[in-house]
Amino acid sequence: MAEVIAKEARAASTVLKTLSNEERSSALQAVHDALKVSKNQILEANIKDMEAAQSQNLSSSLIKRLDLSKGDKFDVMLQGVLDVAALEDPVGKITLATKLDDGLDLFRLTAPVGVLLIIFESRPEVIANITALAIKSGNTAILKGGKESLYTFTAMADVVNEALSKTSVPEKAVQLIASREDVAALLDQDKYIDLVIPRGSNELVRNIKSNTKIPVLGHADGICSIYVDKDADLDMASKIVFDAKTNYPAGCNAVETLLIHKDLKDKISQIVDRLIEGGVTLHPTKEVESTLPSSAKIISAVEGDFDKEFLSFDIAIDFVDSVESAINHINLHSSKHTESIITENKQTAEKFLKAIDSAGVYWNASTRFADGFRYGFGTEVGISTNKIHARGPVGLEGLVIYQYQIRGHGQVVGDYLGGGGSRPFIHQNIDVKNVSL
Amino acid sequence: MAEVIAKEARAASTVLKTLSNEERSSALQAVHDALKVSKNQILEANIKDMEAAQSQNLSSSLIKRLDLSKGDKFDVMLQGVLDVAALEDPVGKITLATKLDDGLDLFRLTAPVGVLLIIFESRPEVIANITALAIKSGNTAILKGGKESLYTFTAMADVVNEALSKTSVPEKAVQLIASREDVAALLDQDKYIDLVIPRGSNELVRNIKSNTKIPVLGHADGICSIYVDKDADLDMASKIVFDAKTNYPAGCNAVETLLIHKDLKDKISQIVDRLIEGGVTLHPTKEVESTLPSSAKIISAVEGDFDKEFLSFDIAIDFVDSVESAINHINLHSSKHTESIITENKQTAEKFLKAIDSAGVYWNASTRFADGFRYGFGTEVGISTNKIHARGPVGLEGLVIYQYQIRGHGQVVGDYLGGGGSRPFIHQNIDVKNVSL
Repeated sequence: MAEVIAKEARAASTVLKTLSNEERSSALQAVHDALKVSKNQILEANIKDMEAAQSQNLSSSLIKRLDLSKGDKFDVMLQGVLDVAALEDPVGKITLATKLDDGLDLFRLTAPVGVLLIIFESRPEVIANITALAIKSGNTAILKGGKESLYTFTAMADVVNEALSKTSVPEKAVQLIASREDVAALLDQDKYIDLVIPRGSNELVRNIKSNTKIPVLGHADGICSIYVDKDADLDMASKIVFDAKTNYPAGCNAVETLLIHKDLKDKISQIVDRLIEGGVTLHPTKEVESTLPSSAKIISAVEGDFDKEFLSFDIAIDFVDSVESAINHINLHSSKHTESIITENKQTAEKFLKAIDSAGVYWNASTRFADGFRYGFGTEVGISTNKIHARGPVGLEGLVIYQYQIRGHGQVVGDYLGGGGSRPFIHQNIDVKNVSL
Repeated sequence: MAEVIAKEARAASTVLKTLSNEERSSALQAVHDALKVSKNQILEANIKDMEAAQSQNLSSSLIKRLDLSKGDKFDVMLQGVLDVAALEDPVGKITLATKLDDGLDLFRLTAPVGVLLIIFESRPEVIANITALAIKSGNTAILKGGKESLYTFTAMADVVNEALSKTSVPEKAVQLIASREDVAALLDQDKYIDLVIPRGSNELVRNIKSNTKIPVLGHADGICSIYVDKDADLDMASKIVFDAKTNYPAGCNAVETLLIHKDLKDKISQIVDRLIEGGVTLHPTKEVESTLPSSAKIISAVEGDFDKEFLSFDIAIDFVDSVESAINHINLHSSKHTESIITENKQTAEKFLKAIDSAGVYWNASTRFADGFRYGFGTEVGISTNKIHARGPVGLEGLVIYQYQIRGHGQVVGDYLGGGGSRPFIHQNIDVKNVSL
């Protein structure tokens, strides 16, 4: 069954790939209109999911995420579909053009990745969001929702599929799989599925990453660090650390590890005072613990605290000898998400910015800025801690790749130098602005 | 042991990442000079490997690949190191700059991927080539050679390590691991190794891909296809198919599958005549077989022949009903390497170019053009059939990724809209040409 689904998604991809931007965008308009018309019907289904969640005593934060009727969530979701439709076409952009020989040209064009598998938990608005992003970028998508949003999911799936069936986007371009299907079987379809995008808890992402050979775009952990250098403005440090820890501790861009230059030993209270007032529990190493004010809530750091995403009002603290020690600590322990240095010393800052191996490297700013909206990207597929393809907040560009085209007139390699012949290559750059295919 | 090696490579990466282009390039000059001085010593070691290979009756093509003294191979290898050193710095290029707010700027800069694991078989010149590419792009590399090149490998490793030890590149930036070490244990180090690059047989690549969670850059198979459309110039088709099959059948860009529009049934001999004269064995489906001239060497196609990389004077042949059938066949069977359509019909060609989901899509040209040298890339890390990060012939750009930098003055998210505050973002594009960090 999973193989059939994946194969059909692959076949649909072959058609979707050839559609124009207008065709893809007008299909999104149709999805938008259909969801709008069916608002009541979808919200009724959503109430059933909410009731089921309440009767099963699921956590209040999960129920909150599930609730599609709250505030203007539904309308924001609808607007999101139109916003994506209005974006510049990410597909078919020429990024390189070379004249290999007379009448033999090489082009590099952006192209869809192919088939996406999206696995998400309780946020049903992801269906509309990901459907829009996938179709806009020419990718087909298999969406697999969690059982807690089954009613909402099924209602929205019906509306989306019905709407798409009247457009030039193939029916199987978006397949919504109810939770009875086996995730594991889908994760095995590496022959047909090109990219997995999990949207949910760290547990979900970690689990997916360990159980598939398909590349996964996302992050399991956000273990972000702040290093307070000996040349830091301590009031700035205190303010940034407080924001990074307490503004939204459940965010993947919240700080979890605080490294302080040992020369600041006697001034540490100036750095952590706001944290203490804010009720944050400090997890200091032994050396740090002896320097903390008595007012602090303290749990001595244990092994693993510097490789841990607390996601709560907790922070691990250690001293380091130098910016180099801070860099080594971070490159060894961080999850490659976002790290920040607080210093007034440009040379120290530049060293940190160059040496840190994370998607985001900041100087005198809160790690909480690591976010697609704050970066001005408009739309976000997710935040990636991968080392290849796409890092940090990922927009539509994470869903496209490129292909090489050669347009010739019967040329064969055997005629050219290196292939047995004597004809040289011209290899002349063509300005991509002058190319129309 | 593998963990220690990988951890040391990671630590060295933290240093290498901070070096300037001049430091990286002058280290390559030092490697070049040392290899040049040690030429005799390395060639003596190479003779030992050749003798061992001969006494073990290894294949003549393997022995040929092993032989470093043949022609100008050694000098070409030396020149290659200098060529890479002279390339434009791939690291630290600013590709996006946005003013988020006054005194709060976002930059996107190219950066090394991190730690590479290179696994190669009998070509010892890969050591110099990959060392150059890795260091130039700021990546540390673990090189694992096959046992057949052990003497050459050890001799070159000593020279390279000795040369690097006198430069600012850290000693562990290039670690050459003799074949006694366990590949499997290295492939488990996904915590420290970011990318695996196999250079060798399909068997090697396939084996590595199935045994690691680290992303693999490369291709296991090159199952390339040519579709001869009903509107093809048949003489051109015959010429291209012949070149693509026979120019170098062991190449991954050689054609393995020939799809012919069924309207050409009665003219098939015009397409395959050169193949037949050239001694190629045809593997036709039943339908095709009945239309072939009696002079053809024929083995009826069996299941799997259209998913097979023959790497020999063999080609599978089938009829298709339309360009759409050709596209579906290719997107289902090909290894996403390179496919070509032969047609005089622009509309048909454009459909094919848009719909085919492979790294290379050609119109009226031989698949054999899929090659970094022919594309004018100068240097080639390998050919990738991956769907993300890097596709087709991959140059230095496959070894870099990007990082986001924020340079602020103490800003915190809590002050901004969406983070609890009221301050809006500016989100103004900065022309990257005007940025100097």
